[in-house]
Amino acid sequence: MELRSFIGLDEAIKRSLKYSPRQKSTIVPLLEAVGKFSAEDIVSPSDFPLSDRSAVDGYAVNSRETISSSKINPSSFNLVGKLFPSSSKNFVLKTGESVRIATGSKVPKGADSVVMLEDASEKDGRVDVYVPLRKYQNVSRKGEDLRKGFPILRRGERVYPPHVAALLECGIEKVAVISLSIGIVSTGDELVSGIVRNSTQPMLQSYFQRKGFVAVGHGVVPDVQSAIEDALDLVKEDVIIVTGGTGPGERDVLPSVMEKSGKFVFRGLKIRPGRTTSFGIYNGKPVFMLSGLPVAALIASENVVLEAIYRWFNLKREVKEIGSGELGRSLVNTLGFRSFVRVRVEEKNEKTFVYPTRVTGSGVIYSMINADGILVMDENSEGIAEGERVSYEVLRW
Amino acid sequence: MELRSFIGLDEAIKRSLKYSPRQKSTIVPLLEAVGKFSAEDIVSPSDFPLSDRSAVDGYAVNSRETISSSKINPSSFNLVGKLFPSSSKNFVLKTGESVRIATGSKVPKGADSVVMLEDASEKDGRVDVYVPLRKYQNVSRKGEDLRKGFPILRRGERVYPPHVAALLECGIEKVAVISLSIGIVSTGDELVSGIVRNSTQPMLQSYFQRKGFVAVGHGVVPDVQSAIEDALDLVKEDVIIVTGGTGPGERDVLPSVMEKSGKFVFRGLKIRPGRTTSFGIYNGKPVFMLSGLPVAALIASENVVLEAIYRWFNLKREVKEIGSGELGRSLVNTLGFRSFVRVRVEEKNEKTFVYPTRVTGSGVIYSMINADGILVMDENSEGIAEGERVSYEVLRW
Repeated sequence: MELRSFIGLDEAIKRSLKYSPRQKSTIVPLLEAVGKFSAEDIVSPSDFPLSDRSAVDGYAVNSRETISSSKINPSSFNLVGKLFPSSSKNFVLKTGESVRIATGSKVPKGADSVVMLEDASEKDGRVDVYVPLRKYQNVSRKGEDLRKGFPILRRGERVYPPHVAALLECGIEKVAVISLSIGIVSTGDELVSGIVRNSTQPMLQSYFQRKGFVAVGHGVVPDVQSAIEDALDLVKEDVIIVTGGTGPGERDVLPSVMEKSGKFVFRGLKIRPGRTTSFGIYNGKPVFMLSGLPVAALIASENVVLEAIYRWFNLKREVKEIGSGELGRSLVNTLGFRSFVRVRVEEKNEKTFVYPTRVTGSGVIYSMINADGILVMDENSEGIAEGERVSYEVLRW
Repeated sequence: MELRSFIGLDEAIKRSLKYSPRQKSTIVPLLEAVGKFSAEDIVSPSDFPLSDRSAVDGYAVNSRETISSSKINPSSFNLVGKLFPSSSKNFVLKTGESVRIATGSKVPKGADSVVMLEDASEKDGRVDVYVPLRKYQNVSRKGEDLRKGFPILRRGERVYPPHVAALLECGIEKVAVISLSIGIVSTGDELVSGIVRNSTQPMLQSYFQRKGFVAVGHGVVPDVQSAIEDALDLVKEDVIIVTGGTGPGERDVLPSVMEKSGKFVFRGLKIRPGRTTSFGIYNGKPVFMLSGLPVAALIASENVVLEAIYRWFNLKREVKEIGSGELGRSLVNTLGFRSFVRVRVEEKNEKTFVYPTRVTGSGVIYSMINADGILVMDENSEGIAEGERVSYEVLRW
């Protein structure tokens, strides 16, 4: 397959769809699941709270008996006991009765509201209530947090700290998460000799780890067909990423490896940076071939690799934050290409200006550190004039 | 100190400032540093790239010799060699000469631009160039990525994947990160007996871990003064969080522990939820006392604990994403309190509506899972009428 047969990004993702690896999942304790994608729908096994509970420290009363309560004219109750969250005692309050109740305790029968300590005063076994209460005031109603059957976590959603609390409240201590591992191999004589440092591989490793996957670095291999084959054969992970060696240069032997022992699905993408991005199958595993240059590799990781993974397993994407402003310097697009332009955002005279840091220079990692966002120019854009209003994706790692 | 002496959030943070623990740092390999806060300023030790390098696979030429090049009238060059990133050979090109050059290779003397393979053709030791080139076209200039002395990572900034690449390119493989550890103790007879599940502690643990800190769970202790003292004495971490037992109830013995063996700095905060949030010193360590209810604990963690930590160590905060829309249901604020209202955002008839999920109910973790953002009502707000335009912080974990 020739590198000149570039295809568009949408078409590329579409072609990758039928090469999804089999979905695997592992059951892990909740704390380990945080940041990973749930492999299962989890619904609440019961109402939560299981019964009406006090939301404050105070006195449980029947709200109807407090209708005319005020500081000057308090309603007075006979205290018949105390309730704590750990109490098992079942009180039944009669008219004129109240119990002292701690936050989280079951509201006793006969009471429907709780007055806060500071709105009441206790003396000699009686409590005076200074404020009128609404029905269910300061009460967490049975099932108000979670109703039986309510979804707590959906398949494909990332697990976050609040899920940990909700699942534990339901007694669920483990969850099945999607386990996808990515093995990264970097090619290049210049990396092996140390003339160029392999910065791309550890960067991608940390990138995919932060995105909720297992990513393993497999070091560098020279631009030698058999060495690359050996390295690919050793990858135990579900998905392979190869960086470098994707270009049309004569030392770019990765294409020969793919032609001989694997299969190209697409070779070359109409995106900038990242035009040499390719995809194929080797040993039955999906292989993403990315540029060795860090920015091109990072942009392809987000827009090609991650996108394919999301689609393969129907994972819920994070909604990207979109910013907007006035373009500070005109941009030219290569027609037919989708360009990912790093931009810096500056406020001047109460206006927001969006400045492209650069369009080319896919090795220029400083432009990525220093960028506030990515402006995407579509395939049918010829460019954008200075002063036009533009939107950009805010960079969040 | 009485729980009735509530203070405002800003005042609380101010008071906490002088109780900062000593800053500690650890030197860790870059992959371990990702997500943590840098303890040092790191500047580029040299220009990067160290010399002009080719950004593509192609032929290095002098751009002046291609001014009138076209498909019909190509300029022709004598090929005098090949350059790869790993080459050590130093060519000096004369007029009419070119070398074949791979991406990342040093551009030879006499050349100032590189024509891409597809814009040229090679035959019998000569290359025809079909397009005119600009000076430095397809060349990554010396120092264009990083100039010597440019900041790569600033003290207090979180380390993200692009930093990994930039630092490695400079040969920096380890970085000093701020190491702050948080020990979490949960109190409550109902937790010890298992009547209520301890969901708050693991949630906070995962929350602070995701924020870049070490967080250790120390389990549950009963509402017994000596048991709480013993538990606090065992905490080896730099900061202590205690959940539960902060209220005015009689089983809330944590205040007695603090009065006897520690010291309160403030007790009670004018925030909702989270009004029992307190802060003090125990064994010389800062102690944040949070509600045992998950939502109150989470909101206080973000707005009190994390805020204090950011200020103590002058850490760079993530800029919060702000959304806006029309308030779908009126909100009442308790004057003098800052309220954190969970909201859901819905699009209807091309308008964005912001619906409060609830104001009270700090145990209601489902409201947090299901919320899109947090709407903050200031201390001087009496409330917001339905239909008013409001802003909210988008929830990102």
